Amino acid sequence: MLDARVIRTLKSILGSENVVTAKEDLLCYSFDATAGMPEHAPDVLVTPHSTEQVSAVMKTAARHRIPVYPRGAGTNLSGGTIPLRGGLVLSTLKMNKIIEIDPENLIAVVQPGVVIQHLNEAVAPYGLLYPPDPGSMATATMGGSVAECSGGLRGLKYGVTRDYVMGLEVVLASGEAVRFGGKTVKNVTAYDMVRLFTGSEGTLGIITEITVRLIPAPPARVTMSAIFKDLTGAGRSIEGIIKNKVIPATMEIMDRVTMETVENHARVGLPIQAEAILLIEVDGIPEVVQKEASIVQEVVAKNGGEVRVAANDQERDRLWAARREALPALAQKRPTTILEDATVPRSKITEMLLAIQEIGRRYNLIIGTFGHAGDGNLHPTILTDARDREEMERVHKAVDEIFKTAISLGGTLSGEHGIGLAKSRYLPWEIGTGGVNVLKKIKEALDPQCLLNPGKMVACGEDQK
Amino acid sequence: MLDARVIRTLKSILGSENVVTAKEDLLCYSFDATAGMPEHAPDVLVTPHSTEQVSAVMKTAARHRIPVYPRGAGTNLSGGTIPLRGGLVLSTLKMNKIIEIDPENLIAVVQPGVVIQHLNEAVAPYGLLYPPDPGSMATATMGGSVAECSGGLRGLKYGVTRDYVMGLEVVLASGEAVRFGGKTVKNVTAYDMVRLFTGSEGTLGIITEITVRLIPAPPARVTMSAIFKDLTGAGRSIEGIIKNKVIPATMEIMDRVTMETVENHARVGLPIQAEAILLIEVDGIPEVVQKEASIVQEVVAKNGGEVRVAANDQERDRLWAARREALPALAQKRPTTILEDATVPRSKITEMLLAIQEIGRRYNLIIGTFGHAGDGNLHPTILTDARDREEMERVHKAVDEIFKTAISLGGTLSGEHGIGLAKSRYLPWEIGTGGVNVLKKIKEALDPQCLLNPGKMVACGEDQK
Repeated sequence: MLDARVIRTLKSILGSENVVTAKEDLLCYSFDATAGMPEHAPDVLVTPHSTEQVSAVMKTAARHRIPVYPRGAGTNLSGGTIPLRGGLVLSTLKMNKIIEIDPENLIAVVQPGVVIQHLNEAVAPYGLLYPPDPGSMATATMGGSVAECSGGLRGLKYGVTRDYVMGLEVVLASGEAVRFGGKTVKNVTAYDMVRLFTGSEGTLGIITEITVRLIPAPPARVTMSAIFKDLTGAGRSIEGIIKNKVIPATMEIMDRVTMETVENHARVGLPIQAEAILLIEVDGIPEVVQKEASIVQEVVAKNGGEVRVAANDQERDRLWAARREALPALAQKRPTTILEDATVPRSKITEMLLAIQEIGRRYNLIIGTFGHAGDGNLHPTILTDARDREEMERVHKAVDEIFKTAISLGGTLSGEHGIGLAKSRYLPWEIGTGGVNVLKKIKEALDPQCLLNPGKMVACGEDQK
Repeated sequence: MLDARVIRTLKSILGSENVVTAKEDLLCYSFDATAGMPEHAPDVLVTPHSTEQVSAVMKTAARHRIPVYPRGAGTNLSGGTIPLRGGLVLSTLKMNKIIEIDPENLIAVVQPGVVIQHLNEAVAPYGLLYPPDPGSMATATMGGSVAECSGGLRGLKYGVTRDYVMGLEVVLASGEAVRFGGKTVKNVTAYDMVRLFTGSEGTLGIITEITVRLIPAPPARVTMSAIFKDLTGAGRSIEGIIKNKVIPATMEIMDRVTMETVENHARVGLPIQAEAILLIEVDGIPEVVQKEASIVQEVVAKNGGEVRVAANDQERDRLWAARREALPALAQKRPTTILEDATVPRSKITEMLLAIQEIGRRYNLIIGTFGHAGDGNLHPTILTDARDREEMERVHKAVDEIFKTAISLGGTLSGEHGIGLAKSRYLPWEIGTGGVNVLKKIKEALDPQCLLNPGKMVACGEDQK
């Protein structure tokens, strides 16, 4: 419990209505969208409306050495927002203004609580697009997605969040607000602090304003599905399309387990007898789109796949609905869904898909795999039951093997979900203890009291005792 | 002078032929491509061939507290490689192997001493391109350009160096080698160390291996010149082209002073009676290129410009040769050339161009301006004489005003040349003392003895006394 004086100070900064201490209200902040994580409620929830208020809250926390857990919509998938050590949850949901849309410079400036989709709705009338599109974009906030450096379906062609963040205002652990970057396309003024804070998972500072780059919305698109009797054909098609110099906006995969589950759940007409389906969308100006679509069709046919082109928006929407159903459908099959985020170089996709199947067989587990095939970012999803201790032991072993395999294929622990609480123990596998020490030094330099999202990504403070 | 034991240790690590101590040989390392900087020779030049050797050299330097100045081709324009405090210059020129070209994953892995153009010549047969193209690409190294986060002519459409670096191996101040990132398009494993070291100007570590992303080379292009009787028409055209959703590969500007000088110098047929010329190139697949070229022509005509389309490669080459002549031609006009790098949001280009003209008039200086108009990255170039103290005082005042104006228009101190020695005193203008303190903390965390390129970008060690 926090000292009553601290609560009074917070109320004087924010107004009583923005300082929540009722246990039943705090419970919803003890977890996030990540399964299988420890739960812990904060001592207090604060909802500032301005950078000045975030600054004042952080100064109070620093004075009393209280942990601060920044939180957007809590949709992250690495346990990133769980307030493990109590203290404050700082919700950015009331800092939800779009400050500026600047169509001349293709730029928008937003507060962290703006929902990604709301930004896209606001820029659409200008013919513009903010490309990063994590699965949770209808609820996830800009602040959360910048802090996590979210990926999404369009990553292959359009890149991820870091490619669109041009400037940030950040409140440091001391409570001081600083600004880096801005509205220029080119900026090499000193260290790349914009990208250090992007993806820092709330452990180095609290993001209070974001300047992002927009792009002209592509005027045309063609959406296709490609059905394969074996994983190898799907894998070869993915490689072949890129080799033929076509970079689709999205190229998604679902394996048989995922298709069966989606079909049982939602009856969208997926071919449950097939081993894999690719959903491919090319976009751009009409002439390019037609050309690229025909290259895709040739490559798929050559690799034994059966292509269907969505004839209209309705058919397109049905295909993407099936893809979006993947996680919810899998999640309903068994009580616990362990969603992973292993990512490999594109050319290793087939190997990785086969390895995941084999690991599932070896540990007798149901693993459905779907994900962003074009950029090698797979989401093997283990369907299990957290109450079954014996099975959970097998799950942990399987997860370990999945990551070991990804790294041995030249891949990474996390393509887009971040490290958070869920993966910090795996960090040395990828970057070595030398690499982890570099992270720690940066954490200690910018947050010497270990107050910002402690217990996540890198050890600090009491972790190290 | 370094202790003879240190020299012996270095020779035992590298072999005598890779440890140079003769004064006359060291002189060439006392300056770089930047004008108007103090000169200082190193005590020794070392040329390692491997990461292991870099590691061993750095360990020796750390043990004896000797400054280490990493250096590629020395083409930087911010005094970034000058060994201000003596010690070691570590040249990467002998680490010049292309380790791997991986056309399936659109990736190349190189040692830091590889020349940018050599990489492009090596990937061209695969139909691939490494887009960053600083003016010095024929001699500049990959290591230097990653350390400086170089821009170039194609920045508008294709981004800058940071957008292409996927993985790095870096030798830290302790001598330990660490690796971050890799071959996956998506990677959010922990803090973005790849982008922290990219653009760190040799002050945080020595880059020993680089993994970069390649793109399919665009199959077609159209090159155009557009001549304007006033700067406003040129400025409006730049804005109008982007507003019409055309993002040219390059969109360069030269003002009257620059054109006159180039024409006097090289007789390439530039219209010296005009106020500004834009050189615009659109690229992509043929259908797109034709469409975009006609939009460019419409916009230019509407803004009072006169367009010519290069009929063939010869005409194209002549246009770009004129642009490449800008700096050498200006540099011949007077003894000293002060090349600046002020960058503003695209919509402020006209304002900035007019402001530079006005500053030139006010201080009675010749300023030629050219640069990457499409991304707001201008190179106002003051032609002066370093021996004329009175004039140099006016130059310094003019430079101060140019940066003040750029920042007041929402711009930045450096679009692509970095901070180095030349601009460190301006840093607080852009990021405040709070921002500078963040940089210092990171510098101290990773280089506590202040051994890596000391005296550049952020103060450390004896600067602070």
